[in-house]
Amino acid sequence: MNREVVLRLSKYRRLLQKFKILGLERVFSNNLGDALGVTPALVRKDFSNLKITGNKRGGYIIDELITSIDLILGKHNLREVVIVGCGKIGAALMQYKGLERDGIKIVAGFDLKPEKVFYKGEIPVLGLDDLENFIKKKQIKVGVISVPELAATAVFEKMINAGIIGFLNFSPVELKYNKDSQIFDNNNSYFINNINLSVEIENLFYYVNSKTDEFS
Amino acid sequence: MNREVVLRLSKYRRLLQKFKILGLERVFSNNLGDALGVTPALVRKDFSNLKITGNKRGGYIIDELITSIDLILGKHNLREVVIVGCGKIGAALMQYKGLERDGIKIVAGFDLKPEKVFYKGEIPVLGLDDLENFIKKKQIKVGVISVPELAATAVFEKMINAGIIGFLNFSPVELKYNKDSQIFDNNNSYFINNINLSVEIENLFYYVNSKTDEFS
Repeated sequence: MNREVVLRLSKYRRLLQKFKILGLERVFSNNLGDALGVTPALVRKDFSNLKITGNKRGGYIIDELITSIDLILGKHNLREVVIVGCGKIGAALMQYKGLERDGIKIVAGFDLKPEKVFYKGEIPVLGLDDLENFIKKKQIKVGVISVPELAATAVFEKMINAGIIGFLNFSPVELKYNKDSQIFDNNNSYFINNINLSVEIENLFYYVNSKTDEFS
Repeated sequence: MNREVVLRLSKYRRLLQKFKILGLERVFSNNLGDALGVTPALVRKDFSNLKITGNKRGGYIIDELITSIDLILGKHNLREVVIVGCGKIGAALMQYKGLERDGIKIVAGFDLKPEKVFYKGEIPVLGLDDLENFIKKKQIKVGVISVPELAATAVFEKMINAGIIGFLNFSPVELKYNKDSQIFDNNNSYFINNINLSVEIENLFYYVNSKTDEFS
């Protein structure tokens, strides 16, 4: 399934849970389309690809939709992640309640100098030396990278060797996995989601400037 | 130009600056492709679309590339942004040096309760009541939204009415602009980049789980 579809499923799932809390039992493709800014036809296509059927009059039954989506997204699995780099961004994520509400548990933070990390909360902050043992023992598969640029590649390799296969990378380095590299002694494939905050903001400026130019 | 191309240009720009600092004068499509995990052919296509030509032996001249990309991305413009919502995520962005290094200046933070904001730094933290005047006076066009879910839509409308047209949204609500809405008294179009941290991490779990299932 391509990334866009998977992202939409996550978003449908979040919305359905909220509709349910509000007391709804059924939902129409128009409701979901409106809320996410996509066409109702796309919503119906997503669901029909998953063999979920609704009907024109009654719409979709919310509980059935949630169950079907959970089966696909693996919501039944425990979602434990580690954060490597407990500076500004890393510590903010560790304190951000939104992840916990969505069933994502940060089990540990790692830092080169754990004693200097400002975060004071319940999540343990450990040194980078403990990373490999911890991840292997707890069988963590997903990690967030929020270290400075110069440390990113080394941390990435360390995490791969410890068994992480899914990465959310906030460092400004575009991380990628080189299959021909001799660094990694396995045949795994990796899922890397690079979010470069400067690039995201620059992107907005490009559109804003191109629009402003139109009128000047 | 589509979003993917614009994002790549930003990334080329960042890399070229670094190559330059290292003393390089020329660069090959293979260098850029390797660093970003794309094919050299795509790099060449991006540049040829921009009427930038290199040659097989000598590659591209870095200074010329930077100048050409800057013209397109509008790097010459001042990049001032505001952050609305100075909680964990907002405050982390305000303290994050990476943005400043890339020429993005956060000129103010806004919060419902500015007196309770933990951030202590040089960027002024103002109340939401000051938002409209400030943005209009300074002619800010790009803003980051990092408020809780329930406040997101109201803040979005407030920012639109103040003149913001580019949005980076970290709140868990999928913000979108409804052209038929009566709320907005203008005919502008808006650029909204929604980053939902839970959805990004869920997405990794989907791939990780589907991969783990393969072998079980």
